[in-house]
Amino acid sequence: MTYTAEIIGVGTELLLGNITNTDAQDVSKALSEIGVNVYFHTVVGDNPERLKQAVAIARGRADIIITTGGLGPTCDDLTKQTLAEAFGKQLVFSEDEAQKICDFFQRRLHNMEMTENNFQQAYLPEGCTIFDNGVGTAPGCAFESEGKHVLMLPGPPRECRDMLVKCAVPYLKNLSDQEIHSHNIHIFGMGESAVEARLRDMMNAMENPTLAPYAKDSEVQLRLTAKAKSKAEADSMMAPVLEKIQGILGDIIYGIDTETLENTVVGLLKENSKTLATAESCTGGLLSKRLTDIAGASKVFIGGMVTYATESKTSLLGVDAGLIREKGVASREVAEQMAIMVRRRFSTDLGVGITGITGPDSDESGREPGTVFVALSAEDRLWCRSLSLPFDRGRVRTAASSHALDMIRRYLTGLEI
Amino acid sequence: MTYTAEIIGVGTELLLGNITNTDAQDVSKALSEIGVNVYFHTVVGDNPERLKQAVAIARGRADIIITTGGLGPTCDDLTKQTLAEAFGKQLVFSEDEAQKICDFFQRRLHNMEMTENNFQQAYLPEGCTIFDNGVGTAPGCAFESEGKHVLMLPGPPRECRDMLVKCAVPYLKNLSDQEIHSHNIHIFGMGESAVEARLRDMMNAMENPTLAPYAKDSEVQLRLTAKAKSKAEADSMMAPVLEKIQGILGDIIYGIDTETLENTVVGLLKENSKTLATAESCTGGLLSKRLTDIAGASKVFIGGMVTYATESKTSLLGVDAGLIREKGVASREVAEQMAIMVRRRFSTDLGVGITGITGPDSDESGREPGTVFVALSAEDRLWCRSLSLPFDRGRVRTAASSHALDMIRRYLTGLEI
Repeated sequence: MTYTAEIIGVGTELLLGNITNTDAQDVSKALSEIGVNVYFHTVVGDNPERLKQAVAIARGRADIIITTGGLGPTCDDLTKQTLAEAFGKQLVFSEDEAQKICDFFQRRLHNMEMTENNFQQAYLPEGCTIFDNGVGTAPGCAFESEGKHVLMLPGPPRECRDMLVKCAVPYLKNLSDQEIHSHNIHIFGMGESAVEARLRDMMNAMENPTLAPYAKDSEVQLRLTAKAKSKAEADSMMAPVLEKIQGILGDIIYGIDTETLENTVVGLLKENSKTLATAESCTGGLLSKRLTDIAGASKVFIGGMVTYATESKTSLLGVDAGLIREKGVASREVAEQMAIMVRRRFSTDLGVGITGITGPDSDESGREPGTVFVALSAEDRLWCRSLSLPFDRGRVRTAASSHALDMIRRYLTGLEI
Repeated sequence: MTYTAEIIGVGTELLLGNITNTDAQDVSKALSEIGVNVYFHTVVGDNPERLKQAVAIARGRADIIITTGGLGPTCDDLTKQTLAEAFGKQLVFSEDEAQKICDFFQRRLHNMEMTENNFQQAYLPEGCTIFDNGVGTAPGCAFESEGKHVLMLPGPPRECRDMLVKCAVPYLKNLSDQEIHSHNIHIFGMGESAVEARLRDMMNAMENPTLAPYAKDSEVQLRLTAKAKSKAEADSMMAPVLEKIQGILGDIIYGIDTETLENTVVGLLKENSKTLATAESCTGGLLSKRLTDIAGASKVFIGGMVTYATESKTSLLGVDAGLIREKGVASREVAEQMAIMVRRRFSTDLGVGITGITGPDSDESGREPGTVFVALSAEDRLWCRSLSLPFDRGRVRTAASSHALDMIRRYLTGLEI
């Protein structure tokens, strides 16, 4: 049987437009991956009467109700009370959950006092399955009542995502006998519409598995999804399709079922026992931040310099001041020297230099925002990409740092850079 | 009279989680600013039956129904037909609109052929007010029927925002004589529940203005909102409340109606003509990334070093190797030396040093993940915060960089650090 679900977001800040309802997107995506149909999203404020109304409507048209938000310690957090009441359940105090909340506060900053209202979070519907909160205090929960499944997840997106993956999806998977499995194909170096154009005939002819592209930051992902009775069956359905896609797209695929470009690069550096240092100007530390998002990066990423002000490029990194005057700070030559000098300073195998104009304004030499030079120095060789990225400041920075990662990846796998 | 509105998002891609419903946020924010209450958001797919259901529910509980999406030329764009039918209106072909669509294709999309289905967009409900689409082809519209107002806006966020500001808001302002104004109070250094505990009595006694707290990353925001006939009246209602909140919370308020902590810090550095350099270990460049998110930061943020590997702290930054051996890499003493040395290297007024353990594993000396030391060096003085942050890797890094920003802010405003 195929289940249908409705997602109810709870929070006045959603109705005031203070925040976007990313929880609804995260939950929808997860449900679509496990074959649960979502026909409605609803958002209500921190108001028990209107939440009750929304629940009454949802239970009439869905098998599964998933709420996000309203589980916290403050007096407008009313989701548990309202849902429990709607389904005739008592709230019961859980000693275990209260202890977990105490523990969380004890390990916290000394200036964060724990107030009594935090114990409100330890009251949960009788007989429910408790969902642990891996990144905050409020536990979530699930129960079945009158043939409906009710799941409650916390509102803060990080907490919601964590609990969704670790608790809600496994709970829902248990309800169905069909499994959905998928592969994520990660692509850098081609736009979404170009990728789609190359695969369109293939995609149109597919029913199970299915293939869907989507754009994310400066990358494209393809999601290949199969429905089957087992993982083995799904895998054997997907294998020939994967091979065909790899044949069509070639080396712009940087990974299958990997996490991010930075994960791939840190992995490759480790495998090849190569070390890396970075010199960043316009990206301001974003590249080193992305590399150090990966646990264990310190084995291969030795360090970086953020030479943001022009004089620091000369005084700290040793870039020739005359070259900067002659070619401009945002130039191929300066990016190349940055890469060479930072590699020398940190005595690493690889060095990256990034300089450019992120905007909103042009630089003194009249170069357009979005003009960025990314250089890679390795052994006795040197490469530089000149980019013009027609995006806003944030996206220019993301794309520039992705290009640096892509160049390192291509170098370490013996591809043309 | 105060109107209530419901926003109905139309689009299967929202229910699949392919896109976030930013239209609902944009519309909500605009409505809240003009004093229209939003009690519900609903999202339905490209399915006329379920859209009809959603409209039937919405007209029972709102005075104004605003739809986003489903106005385009393809066969799943059914919003106009469905809403017109629900309110007993005919769709009428508009010669003017058809001409505008032709013009748009000729001027803006010279390399795209215009297909017949584009004329579907020129059918509009009889007697409606037409909303021009400033950035796309599909016009929106508004009509009144049986005491309800129906507004239809396009789905693509750019088109929706443009039409919202230029057409929908003026249309709605004509209906009401009340305005809503608000202040955002930004807090760092106290948890949401502790903030709420201090303000609870005050919050419970308030009706207009109202006050609501919410947590975001490692910060807390308070939103103070007043309804009044004019901005001046709202301001005079909020002024005494603001003063009272400031009296209760004191200097943990880092800004009112500012954007972010990094914005505040870059602004303060500029005002005080002070320069800054950063030495980051466990935050790996996140602090410099946040500072350089702010356009114009290069005037005060001279640069940074990411000394991620232990040896780079000695070789590049000049931290005493003996000290590292004796105290451990993640120690107060090393953070302090990093701050002192980076300030010297970059010849800046202020230097920050951050070292710690972000996890997931403990370090060799057995220190727990989340142990972080943040040091600030200025003139002949030195401060260091020892933190234990019981979060995951990403949040530890965010919180550590926020502490550094908070220390700089407190230094520059003459507060205890």
